[in-house]
Amino acid sequence: MSSSASPAASPHEAVSLPFRVRERVRWEDVDLAGIMRYSAYTRFHDVVEAELLRAAGWTAVTIVDRLGMWLPRRVLHLEYHAPALFDAELEARLWIASIGGPSLALAGELWSADAVTRHASWHLVLVCVDATSGAKRPVPDELARALAPFRMDAGTET
Amino acid sequence: MSSSASPAASPHEAVSLPFRVRERVRWEDVDLAGIMRYSAYTRFHDVVEAELLRAAGWTAVTIVDRLGMWLPRRVLHLEYHAPALFDAELEARLWIASIGGPSLALAGELWSADAVTRHASWHLVLVCVDATSGAKRPVPDELARALAPFRMDAGTET
Amino acid sequence: MSSSASPAASPHEAVSLPFRVRERVRWEDVDLAGIMRYSAYTRFHDVVEAELLRAAGWTAVTIVDRLGMWLPRRVLHLEYHAPALFDAELEARLWIASIGGPSLALAGELWSADAVTRHASWHLVLVCVDATSGAKRPVPDELARALAPFRMDAGTET
Amino acid sequence: MSSSASPAASPHEAVSLPFRVRERVRWEDVDLAGIMRYSAYTRFHDVVEAELLRAAGWTAVTIVDRLGMWLPRRVLHLEYHAPALFDAELEARLWIASIGGPSLALAGELWSADAVTRHASWHLVLVCVDATSGAKRPVPDELARALAPFRMDAGTET
Repeated sequence: MSSSASPAASPHEAVSLPFRVRERVRWEDVDLAGIMRYSAYTRFHDVVEAELLRAAGWTAVTIVDRLGMWLPRRVLHLEYHAPALFDAELEARLWIASIGGPSLALAGELWSADAVTRHASWHLVLVCVDATSGAKRPVPDELARALAPFRMDAGTET
Repeated sequence: MSSSASPAASPHEAVSLPFRVRERVRWEDVDLAGIMRYSAYTRFHDVVEAELLRAAGWTAVTIVDRLGMWLPRRVLHLEYHAPALFDAELEARLWIASIGGPSLALAGELWSADAVTRHASWHLVLVCVDATSGAKRPVPDELARALAPFRMDAGTET
Repeated sequence: MSSSASPAASPHEAVSLPFRVRERVRWEDVDLAGIMRYSAYTRFHDVVEAELLRAAGWTAVTIVDRLGMWLPRRVLHLEYHAPALFDAELEARLWIASIGGPSLALAGELWSADAVTRHASWHLVLVCVDATSGAKRPVPDELARALAPFRMDAGTET
Repeated sequence: MSSSASPAASPHEAVSLPFRVRERVRWEDVDLAGIMRYSAYTRFHDVVEAELLRAAGWTAVTIVDRLGMWLPRRVLHLEYHAPALFDAELEARLWIASIGGPSLALAGELWSADAVTRHASWHLVLVCVDATSGAKRPVPDELARALAPFRMDAGTET
């Protein structure tokens, strides 16, 4: 898996955007109609989100352990553009769309591996929540800095 | 399952809206953080959609067999309001929000069984697609009539 | 869900065996071949196990909270006898097959709701593990007593 | 994914056994107890089975299209040896254990990527079924030959 993800990056290195991971449509993703079911697209998001976090030096578990917070989701908006078939190799792409207050917005797209067909696009709003109290917290600077190279506007910051 | 769903209705009977089904948060719905994962909410939608269709006299399979069409999804917009815990009994509620051209819009909400906490709300846009050609088709009258009693504005139609 | 499960029982009441729960084959359970995928059968086990535990006065979470232990699985043996189709109403049946040392063995069957077709049968071995140390522990007497009415040999014990 | 799978092999090439694929434990694989749930192990099997088939020149869909048959499962026997944690990189290993009559037996193991911990082992019996009639059929020679290099006893055949 890791071998097909974009290379890791420290906050000071340039990364090519968006962050990309390849993943295949598996047996349990496909329904009676012979296409990937609408509820399987989140699995592709989970893969690309985990790999982007890893490239930034974090995982969902180190975020809890070191920063004492969870990242529950507040909004998922997902649009389906073209059906995906069993066994197709897809490329999930992810950007950090914005960071502000307690919120972290992600934007994703799912493409065929040959970059011809865009199967879906989505955004997802996450919120930082204290692991003990459950109260909202601003996105920690340490995390915001680690995610900066993956921001949609990162290329224009320089 | 069927015993906890709202009673079946012919298009000419009054139904109490919204359509409701009870379902529990199961082991595979809950994540490391101890709450229902964001990607498990679609399972609750699938249950309430299937039961609403059954109450209207249809299933996803009879729609293919008798009407020669599938209902792929075009848009899912899902908002998470309050976390749901393992084993909680929830009530999924569903309305037909609108029917127009090839599109069928559904609106759903997920509540605690005691109707105190609204865990999530969503809308989902489906589109009628010919099972053979894959081309868009208007929602068939036969299906639109069967779904009419479940329309958000059904109470005001009389 | 609870309305279609067998009634709750204290250890001193007679229960009709096996414990039974009805559950439908949902959209995400069915594969390209039009039948329930082999990996969806565990979902039916999870429902009947949770409902049997509830009927015995427990849940997976109260077991952790009050007894300080988890019940990880050691062995799953699952045989598939007849395919199950989308939307079929099935009846999952469960027995406590044996309790000995740290092990708890469950035996399950999945039938059509009309009791004509047996779709699958399985056994599952769980082991009591201390939630803090991770070490094996004997099944606590309190839990063994609560589960006794659901034992395969319960009818013959009297 | 494909980049981390063993290289493809024609029936005449030597392959190093067992066939191996790397895959990470994802968010939806892990439960409340913080470990991979017992029902998520089949996902790892599905990945390694699909990649072994691809290495042999087939997919589940080409098997239907060209050979007119499905491969439903008859028996799954799965033993859990050590818990797997979120985000762990695992290596799934698969052998063709035997081919005889209509049956195809697979044997799998799930290891930590560093090959230190064996998390699980399983066998799975598949049966060739005619896609039209549903009747059992012998494993076609064409498929048996393609799978021969992945047989457990392949090394000793020479």
